[in-house]
Amino acid sequence: MPRGPLMIIGGAEDKLRRRTVLQDFVTASGDREARIVVIPTASSIGEEIMAVYDALFRKLGAPQVACVDPASREEAHDEALVALLDDATGVFMTGGNQLKLSGLLNGTPVGDAIVRAHHRGAVVAGTSAGASIQSSHMVAFGSGGATPKQRMTQVAAGLGLVSSSVIDQHFEQRNRYGRLLMIVAQSPQLLGIGVDEDTAATVTHEVDEETGEERELLRVSGRGAVTVMDGSRMITNAFEAKRSAPLLASGVVLHVLPAGATYDLTARELLPGETEVAPEDAAELEEFGKDLRRMARDIAASDASPTVLKRRMARLRKLRSAEQSPLDEQPVTTPENGANR
Amino acid sequence: MPRGPLMIIGGAEDKLRRRTVLQDFVTASGDREARIVVIPTASSIGEEIMAVYDALFRKLGAPQVACVDPASREEAHDEALVALLDDATGVFMTGGNQLKLSGLLNGTPVGDAIVRAHHRGAVVAGTSAGASIQSSHMVAFGSGGATPKQRMTQVAAGLGLVSSSVIDQHFEQRNRYGRLLMIVAQSPQLLGIGVDEDTAATVTHEVDEETGEERELLRVSGRGAVTVMDGSRMITNAFEAKRSAPLLASGVVLHVLPAGATYDLTARELLPGETEVAPEDAAELEEFGKDLRRMARDIAASDASPTVLKRRMARLRKLRSAEQSPLDEQPVTTPENGANR
Repeated sequence: MPRGPLMIIGGAEDKLRRRTVLQDFVTASGDREARIVVIPTASSIGEEIMAVYDALFRKLGAPQVACVDPASREEAHDEALVALLDDATGVFMTGGNQLKLSGLLNGTPVGDAIVRAHHRGAVVAGTSAGASIQSSHMVAFGSGGATPKQRMTQVAAGLGLVSSSVIDQHFEQRNRYGRLLMIVAQSPQLLGIGVDEDTAATVTHEVDEETGEERELLRVSGRGAVTVMDGSRMITNAFEAKRSAPLLASGVVLHVLPAGATYDLTARELLPGETEVAPEDAAELEEFGKDLRRMARDIAASDASPTVLKRRMARLRKLRSAEQSPLDEQPVTTPENGANR
Repeated sequence: MPRGPLMIIGGAEDKLRRRTVLQDFVTASGDREARIVVIPTASSIGEEIMAVYDALFRKLGAPQVACVDPASREEAHDEALVALLDDATGVFMTGGNQLKLSGLLNGTPVGDAIVRAHHRGAVVAGTSAGASIQSSHMVAFGSGGATPKQRMTQVAAGLGLVSSSVIDQHFEQRNRYGRLLMIVAQSPQLLGIGVDEDTAATVTHEVDEETGEERELLRVSGRGAVTVMDGSRMITNAFEAKRSAPLLASGVVLHVLPAGATYDLTARELLPGETEVAPEDAAELEEFGKDLRRMARDIAASDASPTVLKRRMARLRKLRSAEQSPLDEQPVTTPENGANR
């Protein structure tokens, strides 16, 4: 069986209006065929959180929503809970305190069943604390701020669904650049992944048909961005920096990825994306293209008289919008151009 | 004449306790020989700000402190003001509104005199707004936040003392990662430089004696860090992103530089630094070194009897501190090791 998709949600996903992220989870779990298990264990008000997600997932089309919420590591050995997870098509871990979540689940039969669900193809999703726990190394807790300092945050062991990584959430909203950079500076082999609120990083595993090699892809959806920090070739003084002083972290490669972007976690590089064209522009662009191809043909055949060309140019001018047209395209990397738009 | 040092201060430099940054400015301006000009024009309470810096710089040892504060572009043509700047060994621009500062000075004789002061070897320093104006491209105003968005900030023309760059200040404290990334995404040839509060980036120009080539170096001092964003090889969708959506910014090379770090702005790379050893450890390390060299010699000469070696090991153990010794050194890039310190 191929591994299932992982949905890493940065917290505060929209529950009332555009439920893009949650709808994506239900769809990936099988819609009308979905058997969803919610794990509200990270939360200190698990019952209320459970009621919200139960209502939401049913509203979004899932017929079956169960709750797995062990109150102790002892309870996390309950075979009935394990059976629910073994039958699930989608697992959803809520927000709260990730150290409570990992402390109660990791290394228990319930924790193992989550990992097993992923490996047999089920969707495993988590928001906020439920996102953090998916990486191999987990941000246990820490403070905000943009500049990395030696003791900003504490690292614990996550479930390891995403290997060689550390995931942080509420990334932009709680200004967590510094603490993620600190972790990457102290563990340069880990990829730092920061997910904004109402935003999902969906990780899938694809096998290259030619080489047979597996690659791990991260695709972004939702309202914010996913920030990836790659410290493979960084220079740092983390082994000798003072506790509260800023860390040296030079040569970190940074990727800020908005919805639609896909990043190859295996090769550590952005996949080339398609330029998105608004539907209202598509027909017009198509028309331009045809006319230009015809003109090129005519010129090559030397039968484009000045009159024919003139008529054609007039038509192109008419078609082209005041704002932009393919004929106006210029390299657009200067601030002057940026400011015009 | 070689160009003078530029001091780019991120705002809120300590004025009451450890006046490291301001003392550095007075020292670089010539201490007892310093002739300092303060430009409080960015501020809307210029008179009060002037009084503070006047008192500070005199307290820190400068015998002569003058004020240049034109109230209009017309006044910025005043020959008496230009004469003050032409005679200065140090120029200090205060915080406030950088668009007011650049709007009143840039392209006037007073503005030209600041540039001239730099080129004849005087120190030019500025804090907050006075830091922003030193780059070729200036952040005019904008909003905070970690994720870059298309219309977060507005760019205007700075004095251009640091070429091909855009400087931002209060960097960590006002969470300005996003807006600096936005500017770099829209203008990938610019180097983004973000300076924390009570922190200075001092830019100097050195001529390589062998090649004769000039290089521009940035050295960090003070309490925080300087963040450099290099977009030379980045991939971005800035030319087509929607106004409020997060921008794609992939492959930006990030450098977070604490006090003591030196970055080569010309080659765009960190200069190798020395490991700093605390004075209290230096003597002990020296002692260890000697003893180890002696032991190596004895072993090579085969005259180290077990008794001699045993006595020597006991002595080393006694010397070595509970915390750390050269004999305990291990590669220290794992979180486990980091947590121990």
